[in-house]
Amino acid sequence: MERAAIEQVVAKVLAALSAQPAEQAETKGIPVGISNRHIHLSAEHTAILFGPGHELTKDRDLKQTGEFAAKETVTLVGPKGVIRGVRVLGPVRAFTQIELSSTDGFSLGINPPVRNSGDIAGSAGIVVVGSKGAVTLSEGVICAARHIHICEKDAKLFQVADGSRVTVAVPGPRGGTLSNVLVRVHPTFRREFHIDTDEANGLGLSNGQLVTLHHEEG
Amino acid sequence: MERAAIEQVVAKVLAALSAQPAEQAETKGIPVGISNRHIHLSAEHTAILFGPGHELTKDRDLKQTGEFAAKETVTLVGPKGVIRGVRVLGPVRAFTQIELSSTDGFSLGINPPVRNSGDIAGSAGIVVVGSKGAVTLSEGVICAARHIHICEKDAKLFQVADGSRVTVAVPGPRGGTLSNVLVRVHPTFRREFHIDTDEANGLGLSNGQLVTLHHEEG
Repeated sequence: MERAAIEQVVAKVLAALSAQPAEQAETKGIPVGISNRHIHLSAEHTAILFGPGHELTKDRDLKQTGEFAAKETVTLVGPKGVIRGVRVLGPVRAFTQIELSSTDGFSLGINPPVRNSGDIAGSAGIVVVGSKGAVTLSEGVICAARHIHICEKDAKLFQVADGSRVTVAVPGPRGGTLSNVLVRVHPTFRREFHIDTDEANGLGLSNGQLVTLHHEEG
Repeated sequence: MERAAIEQVVAKVLAALSAQPAEQAETKGIPVGISNRHIHLSAEHTAILFGPGHELTKDRDLKQTGEFAAKETVTLVGPKGVIRGVRVLGPVRAFTQIELSSTDGFSLGINPPVRNSGDIAGSAGIVVVGSKGAVTLSEGVICAARHIHICEKDAKLFQVADGSRVTVAVPGPRGGTLSNVLVRVHPTFRREFHIDTDEANGLGLSNGQLVTLHHEEG
């Protein structure tokens, strides 16, 4: 190995090993937000499932500004199983999207691909049943790819940009690292690491627990 | 930082960076074995659940020598849910142990701790129902801590011993690393990395997929 390469490695290692002040380390923690199975509805599907003119009723605000959990729930019916009480998240969107864990997909008998939110072309289908009707979706069911929401100030702090891929380090007896985490930067975003229940349970993570972000190689 | 410490770090980094021949890397792959929810039964509980004198019927051999999936299944009944069709694994053991994912625990309304097999003191309880009777367990339900089975020859190849803790690297879009993996060495063991369905789904792992073992720091 060339001397220059060795020196570069040493510099990186020393930077990583140099202890950060406890305060700074704390401000660099990113709280975990665990997404349980949920559905985002289009206006058209809201009308079919809950009746014409129906508006979603807010149950509680979510951490990301403007997003809320509605009181409404739906039932998902797949070829091998049924899941009741799937929470509707508001506000209404341009198209319907369902986010499940792979475990949920298995119990329903479908195979939702891991995708970024909004990328539903060719994803899994399902039957959705509401209080007033049902919709048969040919696509729209995904496992949401893990991602971080941060505002522009935090993006500077972490030296990342919208679209960056980072690795998240997870402490604890079931700890490890999660690679290939998409960073999403927006002025209204609040710092949050979004994962599904499989990822949370597999790594022993709880809601609100702090994890750390690391730049990926290359 | 002291010069000696830096040199130690450099040596470790260089060792990690030195590329291994492709062939050797391949022989060092460890196949993933995903454990779905299952139950090991004591002779006493087998008699209660399936009738006096009942012997478990082998459905298929498992990868580890002597272990088999039985045709028998049980129903688990928790405070918040029921899971049917939970596979019995044979042969009969000294005590009953149920291995679930955290997701299963949530749907049943119980909180099984992450434990090594056999360490069930103070673990979660559950009601088990078979074709001829039911058993109420005050403990015995765990999430099995991830572990690697290897034989003594492989232990030498990997430079690990029974009880070593290693990190497993997982490739792919949902990849990352899983730390704190217990190594179990026994002459009859076949090379296998045992994880539960949450870990498999959270990291995008399939049965038989090859992962690599890395020594942990310190």
